[in-house]
Amino acid sequence: MSDHLDLYPSRLKAYRKPIPRQDPIVHARNQKRWEGPLDEVALSRYERDGYLWFEGFFSKDIIEPFFEELKAMAKDDELMRSDQVITDPNSGAIRSVFGMHHLSERFDKLTRDPRILGMVRQLLGSEVYIHQSRINDKYGFEGSGFDWHSDFETWHAEDGMPRMRAVSASLMLTDNNEFNGPLMLIPGSHREFIPCVGETPEYNWKASLKAQKIGVPDQEALARLAEHGGIEAPKGPAGSLLLFECNVLHASNENMSPWPRSNLFFVYNSVDNTLDEPYAAPMRRPEYLGARETVEPLSMHDDFPELTGQGVKPLQ
Amino acid sequence: MSDHLDLYPSRLKAYRKPIPRQDPIVHARNQKRWEGPLDEVALSRYERDGYLWFEGFFSKDIIEPFFEELKAMAKDDELMRSDQVITDPNSGAIRSVFGMHHLSERFDKLTRDPRILGMVRQLLGSEVYIHQSRINDKYGFEGSGFDWHSDFETWHAEDGMPRMRAVSASLMLTDNNEFNGPLMLIPGSHREFIPCVGETPEYNWKASLKAQKIGVPDQEALARLAEHGGIEAPKGPAGSLLLFECNVLHASNENMSPWPRSNLFFVYNSVDNTLDEPYAAPMRRPEYLGARETVEPLSMHDDFPELTGQGVKPLQ
Repeated sequence: MSDHLDLYPSRLKAYRKPIPRQDPIVHARNQKRWEGPLDEVALSRYERDGYLWFEGFFSKDIIEPFFEELKAMAKDDELMRSDQVITDPNSGAIRSVFGMHHLSERFDKLTRDPRILGMVRQLLGSEVYIHQSRINDKYGFEGSGFDWHSDFETWHAEDGMPRMRAVSASLMLTDNNEFNGPLMLIPGSHREFIPCVGETPEYNWKASLKAQKIGVPDQEALARLAEHGGIEAPKGPAGSLLLFECNVLHASNENMSPWPRSNLFFVYNSVDNTLDEPYAAPMRRPEYLGARETVEPLSMHDDFPELTGQGVKPLQ
Repeated sequence: MSDHLDLYPSRLKAYRKPIPRQDPIVHARNQKRWEGPLDEVALSRYERDGYLWFEGFFSKDIIEPFFEELKAMAKDDELMRSDQVITDPNSGAIRSVFGMHHLSERFDKLTRDPRILGMVRQLLGSEVYIHQSRINDKYGFEGSGFDWHSDFETWHAEDGMPRMRAVSASLMLTDNNEFNGPLMLIPGSHREFIPCVGETPEYNWKASLKAQKIGVPDQEALARLAEHGGIEAPKGPAGSLLLFECNVLHASNENMSPWPRSNLFFVYNSVDNTLDEPYAAPMRRPEYLGARETVEPLSMHDDFPELTGQGVKPLQ
């Protein structure tokens, strides 16, 4: 475990009260903050709520090939047997696939899309790299939910991410509606760190990625935060984009509809916030869950015609 | 088991395709249909969708004492140990309490409220009695969901209800919102009977009331009906009322919010549709799940001041 100063202790033997956030929410400062691409209204909303929702950010035409490639992957037996693929505890169907940007050039390029990367660099106030990428799938009538949690709590405790200086970009590969298990968030919950009770066992991720039992915030804190900030579930067509701060509490319910729900997540971390040893776990998690080797800054890359001639590196 | 003609076979050894509904949806005819209290617009909508939603039907002032009485019941140890109380398979909290109108005079009187009873008699085209009453509770963060099902399928197979001539009145005792597991319905699904595969074991209700495994419609039929009719989840304040036809497919998801969800259900059956022997089960269910003894027609009874002097029997 890390012997560095731990600002956010968790996985404790006994209850400890919530800790105020010790880090900025928007990390770019002064001139860098004002340069955009997000304007002050958007930045203030991100500071207040912990997320930004862009309905129909990409067109369906652009998104469709990603969903198609994902369906093709599901037929790749060797991939499906690998550790990177997590199956549903109830149905056995695909629940998550990790390391999407290593598996597919198409997904890799998308992580470097200038529209996303510009916003992410501004929010994190530095160059960025991919800490983790994944697809979370919920088949019709089958996908289980995800209980309330802070991603940062796990990345700090189990991966050794020192500070709250990461953001997830979640791109909807299918429509997200009221009935297919959309992501729910508690606005404002990113401003507190909830220490969790319960020590991390060895190889915890093998169980936690199916159903999280360790690193679960207590119901009293959840209730208080939800009473204060409410609960929101952004909904919209395939191609919609959610940027959410690494410490905002989120969850999702079961998919009780016939409509599949497939969301892509790219977790961007600041190059000034690379991983230390785990703060509260007996061992590191695998590279595909928390990158330590591939941490060079991402360079922009545009696959689509909209930005040609605007100084963005052209398609190779 | 019943040796009468079975219009709606279910709990079968092998797949059988859906059967068109053999019964009217609105049972009152001609002059009786037109006499109200529901007008032709409402009746047509009920015929089309299989349900009617009345947002804020009763005021919160009227509803609150019912919720308070329920909370008092939860402290009654003897009651809590009885078979009428079903606990949550995951949390152990109360999931359902059956026979509410026998446990409480307040609930009994509500079953005979003229505003509800007038509509129910019109929909069923006859005098009516209570086939079953229950509360379904979902505590904050704890209540499990209910998978998709037709109530009539169970009442026919396990209780011997001959025809589709029953309606459920569901009264919200708490607010129902997007996050506390509101009832979901598939509009139009009441016009087909989906025979289910799988024979009914003895004492099936002891398991099925916690989590239904037998009498579950197949996913292909569910998907087809949901693609055709969509899914709706009526939401509104405590005091809202849902009238839904006995064969409409419905479900509900887990309560992932801190806000409790408590809904009261009165199932009204036509006095011309009293129970026969079970059509597809080895034994009858208990009286509190399907009434055979108390089947005399309900008479109107008004506890509230609004209807005094309008020919309604006054409060005793």
